[in-house]
Formats: sequence, structure tokens, C-alpha cells
Amino acid sequence: MSHTDAELAAWARERLGHDFTDIRLVRRALTHSSAASGPDSYQRLEFLGDRILGHSVAAWLYGAHDEAEGRLTARLHALVEGAANAEVARGLGVSERLIMETNARAKGLHQSDNVLGDVAEALVAALYLDGGWDVANAFVRREWQQLLDDGPRLLADPKSRLQEWALKRRRGMPVYAVIDRQGPDHAPRFTIEVHVRGQEPAQGVGASKQEAEKAAAVALLSKVQT
Amino acid sequence: MSHTDAELAAWARERLGHDFTDIRLVRRALTHSSAASGPDSYQRLEFLGDRILGHSVAAWLYGAHDEAEGRLTARLHALVEGAANAEVARGLGVSERLIMETNARAKGLHQSDNVLGDVAEALVAALYLDGGWDVANAFVRREWQQLLDDGPRLLADPKSRLQEWALKRRRGMPVYAVIDRQGPDHAPRFTIEVHVRGQEPAQGVGASKQEAEKAAAVALLSKVQT
Repeated sequence: MSHTDAELAAWARERLGHDFTDIRLVRRALTHSSAASGPDSYQRLEFLGDRILGHSVAAWLYGAHDEAEGRLTARLHALVEGAANAEVARGLGVSERLIMETNARAKGLHQSDNVLGDVAEALVAALYLDGGWDVANAFVRREWQQLLDDGPRLLADPKSRLQEWALKRRRGMPVYAVIDRQGPDHAPRFTIEVHVRGQEPAQGVGASKQEAEKAAAVALLSKVQT
Repeated sequence: MSHTDAELAAWARERLGHDFTDIRLVRRALTHSSAASGPDSYQRLEFLGDRILGHSVAAWLYGAHDEAEGRLTARLHALVEGAANAEVARGLGVSERLIMETNARAKGLHQSDNVLGDVAEALVAALYLDGGWDVANAFVRREWQQLLDDGPRLLADPKSRLQEWALKRRRGMPVYAVIDRQGPDHAPRFTIEVHVRGQEPAQGVGASKQEAEKAAAVALLSKVQT
């Protein structure tokens, strides 16, 4: 699909809430690598947006929840994993505006959680580069808060979601195993591996077994939800 | 060691370059979990500071290097890994100001890369909460730039550093193995596991084998440099 600069500017004004000085940033954030050489696709923006998103959500969670670091980390991961970011992108109408090769679109990549999640992050970076930290931060609060309001199921315990995913495909129950334990007794770090039949195992790290299991479940879910 | 608020404020003014309104943030950032219950130690601040640091360094690298995302990610990881952050903390004189139980100090924890690296991140969060993004961002640029200027060896290729580490301990050469490959041909994601005799293996992910190997080496180094 091709969009004029004016169309993209109108969309950004309405859906991202920002009047872009440099509309090329929006175009780049929406451009899949199938349609452009490296520097003109969203990949570099996604690198930056990923960290801005992490900062914004971490600051928000830090202020909102008087909880230990492990619990905050679990909340953060659930909020900024691929599937959650993809949900934000869908809400913004990114699928219809993605700039990608016909072939890639025919394969359904414009609906893939990986691609949409990356674009959500790239848009955060575009807002940051054009409008600064306050603009990007306000956008994240607004859109990811929306996610919390609309999608409690999406953000449910990742272990339950992985179990649901595996059972639906007749892969049996996920199996968790502690493969490493580091650190002193008052601050242990567990590494846990989760196995689901027919998948490469995935690992997660956490300050408790429960937290490491959740991280492992998120890691495996993010691999299978391409 | 115990420090008065005035001493901490003077240190923060001189070494962190900021006049704190709430000096309790500095105290908390310097307090190890051996010396205080959860909410009064640096762990929650470290959760937040980790993401602020990532954002700051990512924005800096994005602007400074016109490179593909994979290369930027490798640079970022080398700059914000535990050993690098610990180096910043040492430069600030954190070891001498750490608030920890005598017992933990006797074990040498005040010189551990893990502890010092966490405190460097907690201090970034303290600056952010007291002074805002611009103050925290300027601090990161200043101190981590210093690291680039002073410590090119520290930031050398992590594969070389891991090899050096292993050979010094007579563990033989590190062995790398591809354990997973996902994504389409134009955007593959490799997962690589590195094995060093006597250590749990560590994994890394990247857009090329080289990048995934570096990430795996960083992961293993961060486990052993406690």
C-alpha cells in the first residue's frame, strides 16, 4: 500500500496525537524490511523505541506499585512483550498502513505479532525523535494504559497463557525445570527452562522460581507467536 | 560504613553533578539488601535505572552511529553490561560509600561487579526521580562516555574477553553452537549457546551468528563476574 505524506501526517495527528515536523520518521516506522533497504526500514527505530518503551513503562510501574523489583519486572515484561505491543499497533490501525512487499503481505506478515510489535516500538522512537521524551512518554502511557483497561486477558499470567496455547495444540502440559541458581541466599537468581513438546525450550531468569518460570513462559510465547 | 545526609549530599553534588532535593534517594541507591529491608535497598531503583540507562545509551548510539540494528544492539550490550556499569561505579567512589552489613563487606561484596553495576543503575534512577530525564541523561552521557574514553579494553569484543577468561582458568576454548534459528531469510534470529567447561552454558540471540555469539559471551561473562 502506498500513502502520501499528507495521509501519514493526518493519521499521525489523529492516532498518535502528534503533529510531525519530519514525516519521514513515521514513514520509516511503518516500513517493513521487505519494502526498503536497511536504513529506510523500521529496524533502527525499533532498537531505540524498545528502550524508550521500557523506560516509560518502568517509570510508570515504579510510581504505581509499591512492590519488590521481581514483581515489577514481571509486570513490565507482560506489558511490553511482542503480543502486547502488537495489540497496541492493531488498535492504532498499523496493519492497514504497513509498507511492505506484496509478497510479504500475502504471507500475512502485516498481521504478525512480531512485525506489529516492532512497529509499535518504532513509532515510540519516531515520536521521541520528533517531539522529545514528554511526547513519547505521554503516548506510551495513553496507549499501553488502554491495553491494561481493554485487555486483562491478554496480560494474564504467562504460565496460564502458555498452558492454554500448548493444550489447544495437543502438546501436553509445559514442563519447567530449574537449570541454574546463582547469587547469595538473600538475593538468589534462578534460571528456569520450560519445555513444550515440538518446541525448542526457552529460558527465563528471576529472583524466585515463580518469577523465572513466568519469564521462561513469556520467552517461549514470544518465539511461537510469530 | 555510615554517612550523614550532609556527606551524601556533598558527594552527590561533586560526583553525580546534582544537588538533591531528596537525599534519601541517594542513600537508598547506595544501600545493599544486606543492610536494609527490601523497600529501603537499591533493588527497586535498579529496576528503574536499568531501563533509563538503556534508553539514554540507545539514543546516544542511534545518533552517533549510522549502523544496522544488530550492530547497535551489540554496542549497547557492551556498554551497559554489569562489568561496564561497575567500572562507572568504581570511578564515582561507590565502593567506599556502599551501605552494607559488615559480613557482606567482609566477603568482598562491595567490590563485586554485580553489586557495583546495580548501584550505578540505581544512581541513574535516583537522578531521574530527583532531577528528571535531562539530568539523568546528561549524567549517563558523561560517565559512560568516560568509560569509552578510558576503557577501550573493557569494551573489547566479548568473545575475546570470554576466551581470555576461560584460558586464564585453564578451561579450554569456549564452544559456540547454534541451537535455534527463527524468522524469515531477510530477518533471521539466531539463538546460540556458549559452553565453557565447569560453567552452566549461556544463550544469546542476534540477527547474525556473530551477533548471537557475542550476546551469549556477554551473558556468560555476566554470570561469572559476580
